[in-house]
Amino acid sequence: MKKVKLIVSYDGTRFGGWQRQKEGKPTVQGEIEKALQKILKNDEIRICGSGRTDSGVHAYAQVAHCWAPDHVDTVPLVRGLNGLMPKDISVRSAMIVDNDFHAIASSEMKTYQYKIYNSPIPFALNAKYMLWVRKPLCLDLLNKMSKNFVGTHDFKSFMTAGSPVPSTTRTIFRAEWVKGSDSELSFFVSGNGFLKQMVRNLVGTLLHLHNKGLGESELLEILAAKDRRKAHVSAPAHGLYLMEVKYPEDISKSLKTLN
Amino acid sequence: MKKVKLIVSYDGTRFGGWQRQKEGKPTVQGEIEKALQKILKNDEIRICGSGRTDSGVHAYAQVAHCWAPDHVDTVPLVRGLNGLMPKDISVRSAMIVDNDFHAIASSEMKTYQYKIYNSPIPFALNAKYMLWVRKPLCLDLLNKMSKNFVGTHDFKSFMTAGSPVPSTTRTIFRAEWVKGSDSELSFFVSGNGFLKQMVRNLVGTLLHLHNKGLGESELLEILAAKDRRKAHVSAPAHGLYLMEVKYPEDISKSLKTLN
Repeated sequence: MKKVKLIVSYDGTRFGGWQRQKEGKPTVQGEIEKALQKILKNDEIRICGSGRTDSGVHAYAQVAHCWAPDHVDTVPLVRGLNGLMPKDISVRSAMIVDNDFHAIASSEMKTYQYKIYNSPIPFALNAKYMLWVRKPLCLDLLNKMSKNFVGTHDFKSFMTAGSPVPSTTRTIFRAEWVKGSDSELSFFVSGNGFLKQMVRNLVGTLLHLHNKGLGESELLEILAAKDRRKAHVSAPAHGLYLMEVKYPEDISKSLKTLN
Repeated sequence: MKKVKLIVSYDGTRFGGWQRQKEGKPTVQGEIEKALQKILKNDEIRICGSGRTDSGVHAYAQVAHCWAPDHVDTVPLVRGLNGLMPKDISVRSAMIVDNDFHAIASSEMKTYQYKIYNSPIPFALNAKYMLWVRKPLCLDLLNKMSKNFVGTHDFKSFMTAGSPVPSTTRTIFRAEWVKGSDSELSFFVSGNGFLKQMVRNLVGTLLHLHNKGLGESELLEILAAKDRRKAHVSAPAHGLYLMEVKYPEDISKSLKTLN
């Protein structure tokens, strides 16, 4: 068997998230596995993604791995998968990597982007891809609050309840709002890992505090409380993008590309 | 009654085009009329668009007009319509204009953009908004062919059959391919009017000739033939955007904005 690494983009609009489900909406994992199983003629193939993006979340570059039969190294997997999968999922690259590579365990840093369209009037052509915020947002205020996320903190206040996790402490390397073209604002956040719905909870709380005329001191209280009830409602899924997952070079480098 | 001008954006993906239909997919005209009738409490209101975009075609700035009861000048129509309509249609502006304004008859120039993603690998996040072309396209060759569209010509070869039109002659002011960011190419075309599916037929024929290693002389033959059978298959709808409709300043200027 060989270890295969895939880098995948998807438009999350139509999907019930990353994780395969028995019922309900199609999922990204489910669609990729179906296509992989067909190409490699093996019903047992399962992929493991770097994280389970929620229903409606998009990805520029989600990373997944799988074990594949040895003959995979003769298969043009990128072309094959893109030919079989629906157009709202695309494999950007596929490669054989070191046997020890693991999409979750090897990951060093993940980057998310949350996109906001800040304009008095909504715009149909980005409505499924950015959160529309009518009232003018102050980038300075958002950045003053967000810089408090950088560093190692217990982010329990920003975790949506779910399966228990060994620790709610995470290290954030960057948390910054950037002005894009036109009326676009983006929140970029990079960290060694994220709790369930953490980015959406961070953004939702920042927007709530901004909206109420509150700021840094209230944010610090929420962070210190380690209590989800102190934070505010999640920002919607459709503004969120998984942008990059970083791995150590030695374990993740391509031993053979499968284009 | 007062004459109202609307500027409208839409993501055409889900719609059966602009024109209201009795059955089938929802249409942009149908959705706007439903919302207008509700806001103005008048079931008779009908809108007239500058042109009937096909199923799947998008618009940055489609223009439409309607007659509305006099009290419309007290109604915040932009906010009201955007609150009622699905998110994939948005009204960008609404205003009272001169009684003589007519979205079709007054129009001087329309501009369309056709977007292509020219990359060996498709990209899920633009798959519904650009035509993916795998093989490298030569901008120079496309522009050499396209410049022949500029001027006044009989474009019969590029008209899809439909209801008869008095003339198949149109004047094209600009027909140009431009490189965008990343792997994006766009065809911009402006003219005093367009025949049925004309832009999609122009683009489809250009891509076919490019693909076959043919060029300007073959294009000129097709144009001269005035025969749809000489041209090639239409480019798909999802790459096409109605960008702008221009009107004479005096007749189209806002007498009162209805935000």
